[in-house]
Amino acid sequence: MEVTRTLARYVVNSKPADIPQAVKHEAVRAIVNWLGCAVGGAKHEAVECALAALAPFAGAKQASVLGREDKTDILHAALMNGITSHVFDFDDTHLPTIIHPSGPVAAALFALAEYKPVTGAELLHAFILGVEAECRIGNAVYPDHYDVGWHITGTAGVFGAAAASAKLLGLTEQQMIWALGIAGTQSSGFREMFGTHCKSFHPGRAAQNGLASALLAEKNFTSSNQVIEAKRGFANVMSTKQDYAKITEGLGKTFEITLNSYKPFACGIVIHPAIDGCVQLKREHRLTGAEIEKVELTVAPLVLELTGKRNPQVGLEGKFSVFHSCAVALLHGAAGEKEYSDAMVRDPKVIALRDRVEAKIDPKFRDDEVYVRVLLKDGRVVEKYVEHAIGSKEVPMTDKQIEEKFRGLADDILGADQAGRLLALAWSIEGLQDAAEICRLAAPQAGAARRRA
Amino acid sequence: MEVTRTLARYVVNSKPADIPQAVKHEAVRAIVNWLGCAVGGAKHEAVECALAALAPFAGAKQASVLGREDKTDILHAALMNGITSHVFDFDDTHLPTIIHPSGPVAAALFALAEYKPVTGAELLHAFILGVEAECRIGNAVYPDHYDVGWHITGTAGVFGAAAASAKLLGLTEQQMIWALGIAGTQSSGFREMFGTHCKSFHPGRAAQNGLASALLAEKNFTSSNQVIEAKRGFANVMSTKQDYAKITEGLGKTFEITLNSYKPFACGIVIHPAIDGCVQLKREHRLTGAEIEKVELTVAPLVLELTGKRNPQVGLEGKFSVFHSCAVALLHGAAGEKEYSDAMVRDPKVIALRDRVEAKIDPKFRDDEVYVRVLLKDGRVVEKYVEHAIGSKEVPMTDKQIEEKFRGLADDILGADQAGRLLALAWSIEGLQDAAEICRLAAPQAGAARRRA
Repeated sequence: MEVTRTLARYVVNSKPADIPQAVKHEAVRAIVNWLGCAVGGAKHEAVECALAALAPFAGAKQASVLGREDKTDILHAALMNGITSHVFDFDDTHLPTIIHPSGPVAAALFALAEYKPVTGAELLHAFILGVEAECRIGNAVYPDHYDVGWHITGTAGVFGAAAASAKLLGLTEQQMIWALGIAGTQSSGFREMFGTHCKSFHPGRAAQNGLASALLAEKNFTSSNQVIEAKRGFANVMSTKQDYAKITEGLGKTFEITLNSYKPFACGIVIHPAIDGCVQLKREHRLTGAEIEKVELTVAPLVLELTGKRNPQVGLEGKFSVFHSCAVALLHGAAGEKEYSDAMVRDPKVIALRDRVEAKIDPKFRDDEVYVRVLLKDGRVVEKYVEHAIGSKEVPMTDKQIEEKFRGLADDILGADQAGRLLALAWSIEGLQDAAEICRLAAPQAGAARRRA
Repeated sequence: MEVTRTLARYVVNSKPADIPQAVKHEAVRAIVNWLGCAVGGAKHEAVECALAALAPFAGAKQASVLGREDKTDILHAALMNGITSHVFDFDDTHLPTIIHPSGPVAAALFALAEYKPVTGAELLHAFILGVEAECRIGNAVYPDHYDVGWHITGTAGVFGAAAASAKLLGLTEQQMIWALGIAGTQSSGFREMFGTHCKSFHPGRAAQNGLASALLAEKNFTSSNQVIEAKRGFANVMSTKQDYAKITEGLGKTFEITLNSYKPFACGIVIHPAIDGCVQLKREHRLTGAEIEKVELTVAPLVLELTGKRNPQVGLEGKFSVFHSCAVALLHGAAGEKEYSDAMVRDPKVIALRDRVEAKIDPKFRDDEVYVRVLLKDGRVVEKYVEHAIGSKEVPMTDKQIEEKFRGLADDILGADQAGRLLALAWSIEGLQDAAEICRLAAPQAGAARRRA
């Protein structure tokens, strides 16, 4: 059974016209969502550290660190953009494997596109194929591979970055096989790193190493021809489950990108239903927060187990507080990265409302289910039952909601005007003559940056 | 049990005066052996491909690709020197784990030394500690970790490169822990890649990634504090055996570098006794080859099973022919990389003698035992019984034999004069004010290169 070759052959032979329009649209949504996360994370401490450490050894200024004025060589750009796009844990999720699929693939492709000009349609096509490769490889080994401790976004992501980059470079079938092999033998990343800078380093390194693998294969740097299925290859060494049919069957007929989802809120998914309910109540009843006497939540047991922090002191702790999350949702109608800043967690108005949020457990509630009851000072009661939170498979985010998320992330970095233009450009990617236009518009314009400073 | 912290603390606190002189001498032997391999492999196809692929994205010319005129940034130099030093499979072997310990560690350190000046004594000390870290981590998981399919030179090597680089950079204990963590979460490399360019890529990438890990940690890029022993860390995720005492006990008392060995011949270890016997007979009886009627070998069964190729057609096949190996040993008194060239395998004189070599199996013979009987045309018979081949634990290579090996590798690349000066410099490393002198002398001098061209 030639698993690696079958996958490589598919990626090499696929043509843009083979991809259904709905699949392309989902890919554009993924790219818009990813771009917002990358720009929004551009000033995170993790990427500041990484740039400070590695810039002295970087090459020519070939590609952009999105959301920054920095440029660097394409390999380091892939690393940095992979870090920034995952650093808020706010990027997309492939539901069957919990891979965050866009980071490794898009970070590699946009960096490469600034060096080797390609159309937006070509980049979009390569992106779809890269996501296909990484998620299918993930499907073959999930959940065993994840359960043992591998951070699957890194371990599978490097294959996706390699496949996508190799597609853009126009490699032959043999070279595509080598690219997958060179990538696979660098597959790495432990879940033990969650909570440290290394978590976002994983998709960054996957992007960088996958891109390097394609570049090496282009010069005929050889690897095994069976990296996925060999006795001592990826699936056998790194997993106790090997379901190769998940890789080889239905290629070109089903598309993993259609199983992608986007987080509406910058925190663990278990609080999303409660936030969703609060945001809906705020909108429907034009609540400002001041009129609220008390908030009563009914939630699944896991919600309080994971996010029951009563008095968060810093932003990161706020992400583990369903109380803080509901307070900001009712006050600001959002729970983006901004609502989890240190300042927000310490805001007296937020604290005052947070202290009036109560939660009780109903063991019959599913994890994605919530009942929110808000008692107003004038005696009225407003309530909302959320069966599935927004962003779930059942209630996907609309394009407009993805736009709002993008603006929440990018406006502060680029200014609202430029962020709006970047958003429009990203939606129109399929028609772009030069995909790198997006990267160029993602750098803060010097004047604008100065004005904001 | 704080495994990672215990190891990190030892590396941070160790002082050059804590290392016994005999240990230092073994480390110098390892460096001389490694340097010869790196210079000798400088023109291999694998490194030519890698340079062609990655040079466009490399940084400033900070460090040397040893044995070449190319300079590149220190991260790429570490990669390239890790590749060249392993590409002939001729580098050193840590006997308890079959890790090739010098490649990842020395490739990182010499690259760093060209950027941040250090004395030879400092580099030597960091080298010993890096080898200690990688081999102890290897001891904790070998053989299970290797058996499942990990190329332990890559997977453990990245820790060694990180520890050694972090030592040279003078990191704190917390930063050393992070360096090990960032390195560990990049631990990778499948045995499936043996026989392809990726095999030597593993120590190269380990050197590069380990060095990058130390540089990141220096800027406080964070990782887990328990990368080795955590539930979802290195030992549990990548091995079914976790013998942590092998890491934490006897630190500063025993030294893994003393268990290092050097290959005298550029082929699989199973042919070494036969070559050793032939080289000894040639020397003792001043044989030229022309006077030989017939060669009769008595060998262990494994020898013919693995290396019974009767008519090799290319150099690489020669490495799997005990017949070719004995012919070159008797004709040239050596079995270095040169004796396994395509030209040598096709040389009529070699073929003529090869056809007169016979081997019979004695099931009682151990793998490292041989009896060589040479019948001369004048009727005399000369013979040699080898109990343990040179390069084995029982009969280690002498300093002089390591020198001869070095010359066999480096003379053709640098010219005999420069190779001799480089050799002398490497032996004297502990007294060097600037360790990078070695790197600078390892670049072919332009004039010399032209004269040989």
